[in-house]
Amino acid sequence: MLQSNCSSIRKFSDSTKSNNRINNRIINQSKALLGYQQEINNPKSQQYSSTTMTNEHALTTDNINQNAIRMEYAVRGPIVIRAGEIERQLRDGISPGNFDKVIRANIGDCHATGQKPLTFIRQVIACATENSLLENSSYPADVKERVKLLLSYCGGKSAGAYSESTGIEIVRRHVADYIKERDGFDSDWQNIVLSGGASEVIRSLLSLVNNQQPNEKLIGVMIPIPQYPLYSATIAEYGMHQISYYLDEDKEWSLDINELERSLNESRAHCKPRVLVVINPGNPTGSILSKENIVEIIKFARRNNLMIIADEVYQHNIYAQGAQFHSFKKVMSELGIELELASCMSLSKGYMGECGLRGGYGELVNFDPQVKAIFYKMLSAKLCCSVLGQIGLDCIVNPPKAGDPSYELFKKEKEAVLNSLKKKAEIVANTFNSIPGIKCNKVAGAMYAFPKIDLPEKAIKKAESLGQKPDFFYAMKLLETTGICIVPGSGFGQIPGTYHFRTTILPPEEQMQDMMTKFTKFHSDFIEEFK
Amino acid sequence: MLQSNCSSIRKFSDSTKSNNRINNRIINQSKALLGYQQEINNPKSQQYSSTTMTNEHALTTDNINQNAIRMEYAVRGPIVIRAGEIERQLRDGISPGNFDKVIRANIGDCHATGQKPLTFIRQVIACATENSLLENSSYPADVKERVKLLLSYCGGKSAGAYSESTGIEIVRRHVADYIKERDGFDSDWQNIVLSGGASEVIRSLLSLVNNQQPNEKLIGVMIPIPQYPLYSATIAEYGMHQISYYLDEDKEWSLDINELERSLNESRAHCKPRVLVVINPGNPTGSILSKENIVEIIKFARRNNLMIIADEVYQHNIYAQGAQFHSFKKVMSELGIELELASCMSLSKGYMGECGLRGGYGELVNFDPQVKAIFYKMLSAKLCCSVLGQIGLDCIVNPPKAGDPSYELFKKEKEAVLNSLKKKAEIVANTFNSIPGIKCNKVAGAMYAFPKIDLPEKAIKKAESLGQKPDFFYAMKLLETTGICIVPGSGFGQIPGTYHFRTTILPPEEQMQDMMTKFTKFHSDFIEEFK
Repeated sequence: MLQSNCSSIRKFSDSTKSNNRINNRIINQSKALLGYQQEINNPKSQQYSSTTMTNEHALTTDNINQNAIRMEYAVRGPIVIRAGEIERQLRDGISPGNFDKVIRANIGDCHATGQKPLTFIRQVIACATENSLLENSSYPADVKERVKLLLSYCGGKSAGAYSESTGIEIVRRHVADYIKERDGFDSDWQNIVLSGGASEVIRSLLSLVNNQQPNEKLIGVMIPIPQYPLYSATIAEYGMHQISYYLDEDKEWSLDINELERSLNESRAHCKPRVLVVINPGNPTGSILSKENIVEIIKFARRNNLMIIADEVYQHNIYAQGAQFHSFKKVMSELGIELELASCMSLSKGYMGECGLRGGYGELVNFDPQVKAIFYKMLSAKLCCSVLGQIGLDCIVNPPKAGDPSYELFKKEKEAVLNSLKKKAEIVANTFNSIPGIKCNKVAGAMYAFPKIDLPEKAIKKAESLGQKPDFFYAMKLLETTGICIVPGSGFGQIPGTYHFRTTILPPEEQMQDMMTKFTKFHSDFIEEFK
Repeated sequence: MLQSNCSSIRKFSDSTKSNNRINNRIINQSKALLGYQQEINNPKSQQYSSTTMTNEHALTTDNINQNAIRMEYAVRGPIVIRAGEIERQLRDGISPGNFDKVIRANIGDCHATGQKPLTFIRQVIACATENSLLENSSYPADVKERVKLLLSYCGGKSAGAYSESTGIEIVRRHVADYIKERDGFDSDWQNIVLSGGASEVIRSLLSLVNNQQPNEKLIGVMIPIPQYPLYSATIAEYGMHQISYYLDEDKEWSLDINELERSLNESRAHCKPRVLVVINPGNPTGSILSKENIVEIIKFARRNNLMIIADEVYQHNIYAQGAQFHSFKKVMSELGIELELASCMSLSKGYMGECGLRGGYGELVNFDPQVKAIFYKMLSAKLCCSVLGQIGLDCIVNPPKAGDPSYELFKKEKEAVLNSLKKKAEIVANTFNSIPGIKCNKVAGAMYAFPKIDLPEKAIKKAESLGQKPDFFYAMKLLETTGICIVPGSGFGQIPGTYHFRTTILPPEEQMQDMMTKFTKFHSDFIEEFK
């Protein structure tokens, strides 16, 4: 498949050569899209607009950050905004279609789709917040011990004090211990940076490497296509150069080193490549990289003097029979290769799904000490990330051990979540593959499926006549007809001429069955309508 | 004073004309400073360095973001790092001076210096985290009602779900109500953006306006001198142009419109001025702007088509007899002037001091709707700020009302904090003014004093011989001798040839007395040594 699509890849990459220059066409498209969003958000926008138009504005779409205009973040884009609007309509008793509920399969937001928090995490955070609970006999002893230890490292023993910009020392030490236990190789706690979710540390790292000099080439960042749009959005916002390497859909979204070489070589004319981003387990692909593949990737990065950002936030989400998570740190250590690696983890995914707490970390391996010091200085102006988020993260990197009072319940709750996700991973892929015109790879890990859809020519024409991308048109129609909210593949990137969408596997099992039934009917009606 | 220093101001502003171009001198200084920090952080750095030096690094101080190298954030700079090192030594039984404790007067970190959290906030957060507490009879009814309301607006009724990128709707509505009640003018909840502290929304706004175009002038941001270094650090990091306007120390740090005009006019040759930052009550100055002053500032901004960022995080911290806080929004509304205003507030200051929770908001007034939509789109890639921080903020913008079960305790705790701060504001200014060679303006508001110190010529020479700024030399010697940690004035900006430092007024009253005694003795010994 990759082979056969080589010419279209090349054509596509040619057409994006100037993707980091100001591009009026894209900006105008974005403005049109914003008009659309604005109308959804505020039905009175027309009126509001005319009031303020009489006034001279200091900030206009012509003089603000043009990168901000170009950036797109599909996971929270127009379809998701429309879903919110429909939810408000449903609350008011108005249904735009034959459904009474929006099914939010657009974002990896576990608790929002009904997953329950782990008792241990919530007990620790509650006691760390409301210290009188430490006297409450209904809380287990290990919860109380944990809280006392954590607070002894907080200023004034309060979760209300700022932490160090890099995070609370004891939590950083626990993260290092977790990594050491996971990989069997040492981890230096002073290489650990705690952050408000993995996104924050990834954005900070991209900012660190973004050295824009007048009349010089932009800094290039290699990202997989399809990718999680945090990357394309941040690269666009920071005015960096996106180097797209394509994953091989026909081989379960695996990563082909020849494709890495191709994309890197073609990019050199336009940028200075400096970073290779790898998402493993994959978002949106649901794939897991083999150890052999990781070895090749590391050697490739070393050969080309690239830093690796390993987005490993789904390291606990492994479902496929026999599949295993191999961290980049471990494989690199085994190889004895030294290159800059930042491995990122989050409290928002895995079996805990505590997105709202905003916890995460990055481990910075083999950084030049001066560069690391500059990075830590950069972080200092942001003061610190949520102390309660850091405390939540501590519960995951240092979970209750066998024999601890909280151990059995923690284990039970963790396994229940992971077993259910495993079941749903199979249901989703199997159902999509049973629908003619949809093809879905195995959901081996993470929380998403990224199926390919064959769209009829008439539907493509219809979408184009509306100024919409065909998969956007499909996804919006799905939402309006069934209440199912997914994200079109164009938000993640795909080989031109192919169409996909991303769905999470998060809705509860009973709802998932309903969702699959509705989806199947919608797709067949859609094909019928546009055949 | 301003008058008499005009020539030195001009000389200074001339010398910073190229302050946003790559400046090798500054970068080299920063590198030297980093070496210093690194040695403090990691005594083995030499050894570590030599190991990794054999290896080729993808990221070096020559190829990473050069703005990151130049930026400085003194509030967490080398003196504070040294303070942390001394604390570790003290823990190990080693004292570098004649003291057994570091007094942290360097940062507005209320809980770290002993302030206790407000019961209501902590109860609400604990119940929102650990929902079984909603059944606990020892929690007041209004706490439980609040939690149920807030959770009804969270995905899956969990604080673990992502919120909207702009924040939870009901909290945004409560912020708008708070502003309306404070000012007597309408506030649209859709103009409210919740954020992880005020810093985050301020940084996002500066990123929004930062339109860098090749071969064009940089975007200029007017900031007061002295200023809170979040501004200088972010402006440097983003490669924007800092326009420094000087506050008038001889007139209680008031803001002179002529000085605004001077700095703006001089800057036009070097940048495109777009933003005026005002900090009120002032950090580090402790001053409060009069209403007349605010009227003039707004008219100045309107005349010059500037957006105003009003950093109003200390709006609850008003101590001086007869002084009053006037919000920019209110004064602007009274004037009937329409210009872009972002007013920022934080959960970290005031009487709550919940820094670690990371809560804050910005109100965006009179923004072009398209520009606002682009700003909200930018925020979406960061997903959301801490939901528990948002919940904490809710408790402050919608505190218990008279008659509510939590009202009396809330009021009592709030007043105790503010009364104590008021007392300490007086003690600090009076003590400094009793020391020959130190002159301190009234601490009318906020949490800081910024006294001027006369340094003997010999001390200045000594500092220069060490490659240090004289006030840095003074502050480091104070720390090493007494354990008192303050921040040198050079971190905030000052008229060249003058020397200051910033201290907080946060240490507990009994410690404050001790600190003042030690300070007095240190200063007299210092003068003696270098006379």
